[in-house]
Order: sequence, then C-alpha cells, then structure tokens
Amino acid sequence: MSRFLTPHAVSLPSTVPFTGPETLERQSGIPFRARLGANESVFGPSPAAIKAMEEAAAGAWMYGDPENHDLKQALAAHLGISPAHVAVGPGIDGLLGLICRLTLEPGTPVVTSLGAYPTFNFHVTGYGGNLTRVPYKGDHEDIDGLLAAARTTKARLLYLANPDNPMGSHHPAAVIEEMVANLPDHTLLILDEAYADLAPQGTVPQIAPDHPQVIRMRTFSKGYGLAGARVGFAITNPDLALAFDKVRDHFGMSRLSQAGALAALADQAWLAEVRSRTLAARARLSGIAHSNGLLPLPSATNFVTMDCGRDGDFARRVLAEMGARGVFIRMPGVAPLDRCIRISLGDDRALDSVEETLPQALKAAG
Amino acid sequence: MSRFLTPHAVSLPSTVPFTGPETLERQSGIPFRARLGANESVFGPSPAAIKAMEEAAAGAWMYGDPENHDLKQALAAHLGISPAHVAVGPGIDGLLGLICRLTLEPGTPVVTSLGAYPTFNFHVTGYGGNLTRVPYKGDHEDIDGLLAAARTTKARLLYLANPDNPMGSHHPAAVIEEMVANLPDHTLLILDEAYADLAPQGTVPQIAPDHPQVIRMRTFSKGYGLAGARVGFAITNPDLALAFDKVRDHFGMSRLSQAGALAALADQAWLAEVRSRTLAARARLSGIAHSNGLLPLPSATNFVTMDCGRDGDFARRVLAEMGARGVFIRMPGVAPLDRCIRISLGDDRALDSVEETLPQALKAAG
Repeated sequence: MSRFLTPHAVSLPSTVPFTGPETLERQSGIPFRARLGANESVFGPSPAAIKAMEEAAAGAWMYGDPENHDLKQALAAHLGISPAHVAVGPGIDGLLGLICRLTLEPGTPVVTSLGAYPTFNFHVTGYGGNLTRVPYKGDHEDIDGLLAAARTTKARLLYLANPDNPMGSHHPAAVIEEMVANLPDHTLLILDEAYADLAPQGTVPQIAPDHPQVIRMRTFSKGYGLAGARVGFAITNPDLALAFDKVRDHFGMSRLSQAGALAALADQAWLAEVRSRTLAARARLSGIAHSNGLLPLPSATNFVTMDCGRDGDFARRVLAEMGARGVFIRMPGVAPLDRCIRISLGDDRALDSVEETLPQALKAAG
Repeated sequence: MSRFLTPHAVSLPSTVPFTGPETLERQSGIPFRARLGANESVFGPSPAAIKAMEEAAAGAWMYGDPENHDLKQALAAHLGISPAHVAVGPGIDGLLGLICRLTLEPGTPVVTSLGAYPTFNFHVTGYGGNLTRVPYKGDHEDIDGLLAAARTTKARLLYLANPDNPMGSHHPAAVIEEMVANLPDHTLLILDEAYADLAPQGTVPQIAPDHPQVIRMRTFSKGYGLAGARVGFAITNPDLALAFDKVRDHFGMSRLSQAGALAALADQAWLAEVRSRTLAARARLSGIAHSNGLLPLPSATNFVTMDCGRDGDFARRVLAEMGARGVFIRMPGVAPLDRCIRISLGDDRALDSVEETLPQALKAAG
C-alpha cells in the first residue's frame, strides 16, 4: 500500500460496485450474445442523438462547455423549472459522489435500503459516512422504515430509488409526496429517479423544485439509451444545485455527450417509442418467466426481476448458467432479495436468447 | 446556503478555475472567430479517432468498460510498462481530484508553484489541503525552491508541470531526474506531463515506473486533440495505481471516448503530423509576437506565452481587446507572470486572426 494514502483511503476496499460484462467476457473467453445485466437500453439512443454525437466527433478537440449551459436550458424548459434548479454531471453515479462529498463527514449517518443501489453505498463509505440499511418490505423499499431509521439515526441523507432497482417495484407519486412531507428536518432525501422515464403514469411525484430537503437524480442512461455517454442531472433547490460548483470537475463533461444528450432530449418521439417497446418487452419477458415457473415481479423499469422461488445459492447458480450460455444478467446482492434474478429488457433477438437459455440454465442449476 | 453542506463545503467558493469560452461568448453576444485560450489542439484529433467515435456513437447505450482494459493494455504496450502501472480517468483534471482525495486530509501540506495550474489548487483546497506556493524563477518553475518548500512544510504532495503551463517553459529530463532523486521521503511528486507529447526531445525523464514517490499525469487532450473526450491517465507504481479503484467512478468513462483514445494512440503518424504543425505554428506565432514588439517565450507546448513588457493591468487590457475582436486567449493569473498573454497555437486561419487583431489590441490597450 502506498505510504501516501490517508488512513481512510487505506481502509477503503479496492473492490468495485459491479463487475462489468467486458470483464466477465475476458474471464470466460466467450463474448455475450445478449447483454441484459446492466439495465442498459438495448433499444439504443435516438437516431438524432447518434447523429449529434457523430457530428460532434470532429470537434472533440474542444473542451465541453463547463457550464453545460445549453443542456441546462433545455432541461429546465422541458421540466418547467429554471436552469438554476439543475446540476449536470457525469451520470447519476458521478452526482451521487458529489452530493456525498458535499454533505458527509466521517461518521455522518446515512440511511438506505438493504440491497439498494451499491454505488450509492460505495460513495457513502468512500466519504466516511455511516450507513444504516433498512430491509425491504416485501419487494418494495420500506418508506415508513426508512423514515423511522432517518429519525432514529439523525440521518443527513436518505436514499430512495423510485422506481426501485433491483426489484423493479415502485411507489405511487402520492406515497412519495407524503414521504417528503414527513421528512425529519435534518434529512436530505436523495430521490433516484433513474427509471422515471419508463415508469407507469402516476409514479413521478410533484415536489416543489425549491424544496430544501429533496434532490432528485435523473439520467440519460436508461430511457434515453445513453449509458455510455455519462450524462446525469440533479433537480434541486438553487442553493444546493449551485453547491456542486464548489467541487465538480468543471471541464469534466464530454463535449460529444453534451451534444448527444441535447439531441436525445429534443427527440421525445423516440422516448415514446422506447416506452412502447419497453411495455412489449416487459410483457414478453414476464411471459418467459411464467413459462419457466418463475414469478416475474411487476416492473416499472427496463428490467424484470424474477423470483426463482428458492434461495440465493440457487439464483446465483441460475445466473452463472445463463452466463455460461452467453446471456449476461445480474441479481440482487443480499437476502432475501437474492432469491431473484434480474434480466434487463431487450429486443426480440436478445429475448429469444433468454427464451432459449433460461430453461437450460434452470435445469442445470438443479 | 443549503443546511446539509459540511462546514468545509460551506467554506469552499463556488468560483470556477477557468471561465469557458462559451460563457464569454454568451456574455458578449459575439462568437469567437479564433479559439486560442484553452490550449486545445486546433489541429484536431486523428481522423482515425474521429471515425472510431463516430462508429461508437450507435453503441452509446452500453456503459464503457469499467476497467478500461483495452486502453490500459495499449498504453502499457506503447510506453513499455505494465497495465498495472496505469490508471485511466476523465482527464488529468479528474485524476488530480482523485489523487488529492486519496492523499489529503484537512491541513495536509502541499507544494506547487505560484501561478501554476489552478485546477490542481482547486482540488487541493477542495479536499482541505494546505497549499504553499513557490514563486517561479524567471519563466521556469523553481525546482530547488519547490524541493526546499517540500522539506520545510513536510509536504505530502509536490506538483510540477513539465513542460510548464502557463509559461510554456520546460526543464530538461536530467533536471527532473535529479529532482526525483532528491525528493524528501514524505513527498509524492505529481509530475504533470500534459504537454510532453509536444515537447522537445530530451524533455521526458526516465523514471522507474515502480518508483514509490512519483505519479506522472498524461492526457489525450493536448497532442492527441481530444480535450472534449475527457481521457487522461496516470503512470505510477502498481500500489498507487490500484488505489484509484478505491474512489474512482468505475463506470465514469465515456464509451465513445475510450474508443477515440484507443484509435488516437494507434495513429502515431497523426501525432507526428501534429508535432510538425506545432513547430511551424510556434515559429509563426513567435514571429507575430516579435513583429508587435512583444517577447515570445521559448515554448515546449502548444501555446506561446508573450511578455508584453508592462504590468498585469496592461496584459489584461490586451486580453480584453483581443476578446472584443473575437480572439479568445488567456494569460497567467498572478504577478509577475501576468505581464504575459498566452496564445494557443492554431491553424493558418486562426493565426491570421491573431496577426490581424494583435496590433489593434495592443494599440487599444494603450
């Protein structure tokens, strides 16, 4: 270990939140024929976004606009808020790191759900925060439990994803609105809405953009199909949005990605098409689950989580057997959620692969 | 100010290290006709890199490989080191932030030069480090002074850019090698070699890649012309290189940028062409300086810093007058360096603009 690291840095693991599919391919020597593990959008980005990035490629010698001005203006107009309510960053992952950096000191209490997004936990631990994990209630994040834990621990941050990953469940808008009304004064709610673009109507709550205790996280990685471009944004009160300027990497946004996101936002017809394909693929994938004796959980996202009806060891074997057959999927990390496997939606070809390999994998897993 | 910020975050300014040219254009309402302020490569990236990014655009729905495996392999082969000696990140800016995070605690002493790269200072301050700034010696960073300050302050980090920005000067390899041999045990040298690809032969020192006290920073932003793609890398001992995994945003690299950097690295003929154009543009720009009674400093970089022979107020007026004439340039931020203006190299058209506007700007500045 390098002697220049801080004691805290020494204490942090070098383990990563997720192993990438390319790493798994290098380990096995076999390329995946279906890439359905990372909740990427197999339907791809808007053709207009692809074109915008192609056209921006020759201009890659220029740094991107450090203010993300055009994208913030367009987001504000699209959302009916002001640009001062928006902070842009390299994906929700990057923004979660920044909000942790802005708010956490060693030992600061933070509340999340047991089994929720590991990258948030990575950042909390990375900045020395003290995580309390509240078990899910069935297949939903337990909002009353989260609020109670926030009160008990005097949490500064409370993380909730709605719709939820990895279970795919959601709470209706009114439930989230009530949660916001009941936040303890000392708590900032991080509402991760990565999947909001694909959720059923009535999922996205009304929250005053000036609310001092809420920061919403959105992304171009899911519905807009631009995961590899790294563009996320936060919606919050102007004070907190401005605080990102204290610590963010001002020239850190790719110029191509700025162009791609701007074009993707402008092409709402493509997002509607993706929503439509999402509904169809969800139905087909849920049907495949049923046909194999698995219970597909209702999904408000671009993946279907399937209860395999046995324990985590079994589900891990199913996952490994799917991987051995060239289908990359993932699963929840902790019990009791890990009785499930999680399969991202795909196009017909990708879902054909699932239809073919899932029965074989289940059989092989015993 | 949001009540959720840490006291340290509250204490940080929201000011940015650099104002972007787009911001200046929005303020003035006039687009720049020559963009020569940010040391971008007007010669552009390799056509192969442009093509690679164009071809990667449709695949932007996939996250980039979190291990940056292919790029690390290629860099290692190119540099004659092992991939374990390489850490990839979103530009040197991003990597500087990460190394500060890994090594600094509140009050940790850090040494740099007075007037050197402001973004390094931004990160040091952002992580609570305590900066000591050593004045330049003439137009060069003062290596003996930096080493002495590192000893006196017991600095954990010492930052040196070679070639230097903003003065464009450089120290020969042997001087850097002697500096490395004389580092105090408690000091890690951050050797920023952003401009190394454009420096005269004999500038890049031989340093054992396993050296425990050196981390070298390199980038695709300058010679390779990919500033807007955000790809930098560090060369250091495997222990320290691995430590980045503790804190980096694992899925933070743009997939298009990974593809662009890989193709750019493979096209060394383009880099040679850029070097050749750099030499010619340096000579022409230096000649323009002379013709206007300014003293061009010898440059090892893609910019020429020109001594205007008067004080900082005068140089700031020259800069403003250039801007008013549509030519974006920058200048050093502190005295006595701020007697200079700094103009990035450009193609013929861009340098035509300088030739036309510099005499007018000097006259208007009085």
